[in-house]
Amino acid sequence: MKFSFTKMHGLGNSYVYVDLFQEIMDESKLSAIARQVSSINTGIGSDGLILIQPSEQADLGMRIFNKDGSEGQSCGNGLRCVAKYAYEQGIVQSKQFTIETKANIVDAKVAVENSCVELVTINMGKPILQRNLIPMVGALTEQVIAEPFTVNGIQLNVTAVSMGNPHAIFFVDKLKETDVLEIGPLIEKDDRFPDGVNVEFIEVVSPTEINFSVWERGSGVTQACGTGACASVVAAILTNQVSKNEEITVHLPGGDLYIKWDNHDYVWMTGDAETIATGVYYASI
Amino acid sequence: MKFSFTKMHGLGNSYVYVDLFQEIMDESKLSAIARQVSSINTGIGSDGLILIQPSEQADLGMRIFNKDGSEGQSCGNGLRCVAKYAYEQGIVQSKQFTIETKANIVDAKVAVENSCVELVTINMGKPILQRNLIPMVGALTEQVIAEPFTVNGIQLNVTAVSMGNPHAIFFVDKLKETDVLEIGPLIEKDDRFPDGVNVEFIEVVSPTEINFSVWERGSGVTQACGTGACASVVAAILTNQVSKNEEITVHLPGGDLYIKWDNHDYVWMTGDAETIATGVYYASI
Repeated sequence: MKFSFTKMHGLGNSYVYVDLFQEIMDESKLSAIARQVSSINTGIGSDGLILIQPSEQADLGMRIFNKDGSEGQSCGNGLRCVAKYAYEQGIVQSKQFTIETKANIVDAKVAVENSCVELVTINMGKPILQRNLIPMVGALTEQVIAEPFTVNGIQLNVTAVSMGNPHAIFFVDKLKETDVLEIGPLIEKDDRFPDGVNVEFIEVVSPTEINFSVWERGSGVTQACGTGACASVVAAILTNQVSKNEEITVHLPGGDLYIKWDNHDYVWMTGDAETIATGVYYASI
Repeated sequence: MKFSFTKMHGLGNSYVYVDLFQEIMDESKLSAIARQVSSINTGIGSDGLILIQPSEQADLGMRIFNKDGSEGQSCGNGLRCVAKYAYEQGIVQSKQFTIETKANIVDAKVAVENSCVELVTINMGKPILQRNLIPMVGALTEQVIAEPFTVNGIQLNVTAVSMGNPHAIFFVDKLKETDVLEIGPLIEKDDRFPDGVNVEFIEVVSPTEINFSVWERGSGVTQACGTGACASVVAAILTNQVSKNEEITVHLPGGDLYIKWDNHDYVWMTGDAETIATGVYYASI
């Protein structure tokens, strides 16, 4: 079998995208195809497969399959690429539209120049701040803001935020590569976070700018984590270190994201999405 | 800029191929483009870039750029893919033709079914058996056949063969994954091989079949090494463990190769080549 594909990336998080408005794919083969296309040796090479498809609830839908063939819930970097594709290919005509994922329906906005989508803004939902919902052990309805947190004898202060997944944010005067690499894995599996946790070390550069590093739960150090960037800006606002209601520039290892926590309600994430290649894939299954 | 590409692989050794009979590429950008297309994050994802181009000396030429941007000499798995492409795209009309590489000019033959190239045979040249030309320390013109070789207190027997690059071949009763992994790196940098050496552990299955594992000089354990497969068959013939003048099947971790040492002269390597995808790449440089 063969099918048309587009390879795109957001901050280096790359997927092979297949447009099910044009292509037909066999449901029973999706997991195997995801594994196959993701292989740098015998496939295209990517973090997985994303299907762009019709939706009854939203203007369009997306499904994400990881490189191990398992189906994921959603992906901020993937959503930006889906939004770019949908507008540029005419699946949507408006610059504001909705995308259904397995997790929820999200609002997307595109900024267009010469018919090209330059930036995409995604509504990443409302942060969850209640300790027991993050979840973190302790008094049920409390928030976790700059709370003393000792790990391996090192005294830190943690701010905890869930963006659908849990984040433990630590502010430091100067980012060191060793921070997330050495302390991240210890905190990820700390008993105080019963579901595990993503770990961010953050340096505040100015009232509208932060430097970001992350240890992702289950993945380790990565180049970019959209929900982590959102959670870090929320944490920086909660601790009065950056401007409220302004767009904060987050410098991630993979590139920049622009995050705005709108009136302490929804978190909007803006960033770019890049088309790498378009073509025809020849599947051996 | 943008250009058309084909991604192909031979035994999982994958490259992005660009056809310079159709495309024009800026010489000064080739190294940067090779690095870019090879990235799984922001490019296509591959072991490098191979250019298919006109040649004055042969029916066509190829140039290979590694993923770090450096230019390579040649590549057996890449040559099979180039041969498949050249025949299927009509660059050559005959099933037997020549390809110029930076190292030399090689003969190629294709086996065709329904206009598709199923197998490709490449003349890998004559093995070099003289100790000083491999190079290995010791008496100048001697051959190195099942010679006692102790490393880390372990007594082995080495047969040494150069196929343009040096190989140290060790025959074992039963292949273990730990052999190349543990002993390979020690032998690679052993003083007895002044240029370093590729290390093969080989299990003879039958007079026409061997199992193959390799520690590649500078790369470690890999899925396939074409020159290593050739050197191993030569070594198996020199030690009278497989049939002379027959095609020997070599089972590599990445797939099978069929090697024939023709009357103790040229070594011919046959294997398959796969087209993964064709398309247009959008370069950011």
